[in-house]
Amino acid sequence: MSRGPLRLGGGGGGGGGEFDRLRRIFARLGSRARDLGDDCALIRVGRTTLAVSIDSSLEGVHFRTDWLSWQEIGWRSTAAALSDLAAEGAKPIGVLVSLGVPSSGSRVGGAGRGGRGGDAAVAIMDGVASAAQSVGARVLGGDLVRSPRYLVDVCVLGIARRPVRRAGARPGQGLWVTGALGGAALGLAQLRDGRKPTAALFRRFAHPEPRISAGRWLADRGAAAMIDVSDGLAADAGHLAAASRVRLDIELERIPCWPGVPPAAAAASGEEFELLVVLPQSFGDAAARAFRRATGLALTRIGRCTRGAGLRLTQAGRPVAAPPGFDHFAPPPPPPSP
Amino acid sequence: MSRGPLRLGGGGGGGGGEFDRLRRIFARLGSRARDLGDDCALIRVGRTTLAVSIDSSLEGVHFRTDWLSWQEIGWRSTAAALSDLAAEGAKPIGVLVSLGVPSSGSRVGGAGRGGRGGDAAVAIMDGVASAAQSVGARVLGGDLVRSPRYLVDVCVLGIARRPVRRAGARPGQGLWVTGALGGAALGLAQLRDGRKPTAALFRRFAHPEPRISAGRWLADRGAAAMIDVSDGLAADAGHLAAASRVRLDIELERIPCWPGVPPAAAAASGEEFELLVVLPQSFGDAAARAFRRATGLALTRIGRCTRGAGLRLTQAGRPVAAPPGFDHFAPPPPPPSP
Repeated sequence: MSRGPLRLGGGGGGGGGEFDRLRRIFARLGSRARDLGDDCALIRVGRTTLAVSIDSSLEGVHFRTDWLSWQEIGWRSTAAALSDLAAEGAKPIGVLVSLGVPSSGSRVGGAGRGGRGGDAAVAIMDGVASAAQSVGARVLGGDLVRSPRYLVDVCVLGIARRPVRRAGARPGQGLWVTGALGGAALGLAQLRDGRKPTAALFRRFAHPEPRISAGRWLADRGAAAMIDVSDGLAADAGHLAAASRVRLDIELERIPCWPGVPPAAAAASGEEFELLVVLPQSFGDAAARAFRRATGLALTRIGRCTRGAGLRLTQAGRPVAAPPGFDHFAPPPPPPSP
Repeated sequence: MSRGPLRLGGGGGGGGGEFDRLRRIFARLGSRARDLGDDCALIRVGRTTLAVSIDSSLEGVHFRTDWLSWQEIGWRSTAAALSDLAAEGAKPIGVLVSLGVPSSGSRVGGAGRGGRGGDAAVAIMDGVASAAQSVGARVLGGDLVRSPRYLVDVCVLGIARRPVRRAGARPGQGLWVTGALGGAALGLAQLRDGRKPTAALFRRFAHPEPRISAGRWLADRGAAAMIDVSDGLAADAGHLAAASRVRLDIELERIPCWPGVPPAAAAASGEEFELLVVLPQSFGDAAARAFRRATGLALTRIGRCTRGAGLRLTQAGRPVAAPPGFDHFAPPPPPPSP
């Protein structure tokens, strides 16, 4: 629902201040708003449960036009929004997009990686539509506004046959994560330093794949609680622990890491769009292998749920401090992109 | 789905260029997008038809913080989005809101009409929630992003038991409009000139009421086609005529006008959020009186559908030129609000 930023301007995290602020705002709305404690809102329509969420991507905060092509900007913004449906175990139906584009809407030449020019709005929407199509969804609606910076605001709709919330974890259950973590932060760091990431690393950053089929597979196999890794594994584990009123014990050395990324950095890397999932005690390595056959993704047990509250990270059995979450209200304003 | 702007910076219209551009973009997405020819997208979910739409309101384009309070900004943005559900004859369920707020998010003191200060994000969301509540809807989700300008992006969800599209008008049917037109443009003009509108006129501008119950009443009574007046009566009649492949004949002297507004200005006034509706030939003055008893609103017959294409405006039986539609890509960039 809300997502950590890239911290394009650098600066320290603030422990999920943006999410907390949004939650405080919603709490003040009382019965006029639903509880903001999950990736999606769930709405019963007849015998169906709809899952809906909205996710905003803004130039200079979530992307830079000299790093990504217009299509990649559209894809990435949409994949980030679809990731909320994945975390709910939902099947996407469609997306609605508000697009903000500066003045004439196309900074022809120079803007967009490769300086390809053309109509930015068309190319961004092409990326949006491709991301939607990749998970069986369509573009249902849109709006266009003249804005000082590029903005891609994506509302996603899906159907959750068996919705998985953040709140269902119970002591004794296992904590698992899909894929490998740390690539998003590593790619971002290299781009920020003016280096050229490898093709695989750049693709990880520019073209994230929402884990829709993984989320649905896990929901069907009895996932008790789930969240997508948007603020970073440690921060998102904290959200899940708070919602479920359990303690999460995570062994750093078990975290599946992107090549060259140490576990502590992998645990802090935001916008990974992998799934952090709590599965029944009976779910074991054979089931994880079945998951890999079905989805092509690794599924790694990194810890477990116990009685208590919060997050306990250990390395070689000794407690270590949790890395901070992301918060794009905490750092200073990012410089405008060129 | 898309809406004309206030033309805060003045400047001439461009005949619905924004809408046309959005439609061109959607056409290029092919089967990956739905047809963008209506106020809402309609989606079958089980035995229910969902209506969804997204509508963006940006500081300096759609509102100014020295004209409206934070609550009014939230209300107005949400009412504009809900108006798309009204035009579909749909019953609102809820709204999702992406909020863009500058730096610390509260320009305390000086910003917001009356210089009340406080947390702008909280106050804007309070206005959003009140507008949603006024039509039986709730705030289902949100996102918060640091943005150079205030932005309120609202996605609306509703259920359409009997959806009314733009495309259903047939020759011989009557063309009607709810309420009175011209107040929105008059209020805007006075604010732009630094004058103080009357309380009623200011309320019309700052606190528009989405015509939800009117839209449902008309849908239940066999409305053949409907659109909300967002770009201006003449421009929106043009959209409806094009979608229905009919000609619309409108008699200017029949247009119900806000006190002091001449018919030609009323026909050009955007963001009125009244409903322009095509009703069966059998729908007459007695039915219009029943509508007024049910909704408290006037319903006025202003013309009819005939064979042909486009819009034909007459005054005292003589053809007159149609006023231009609104287009916020055509005028020069508005000055930043103070």
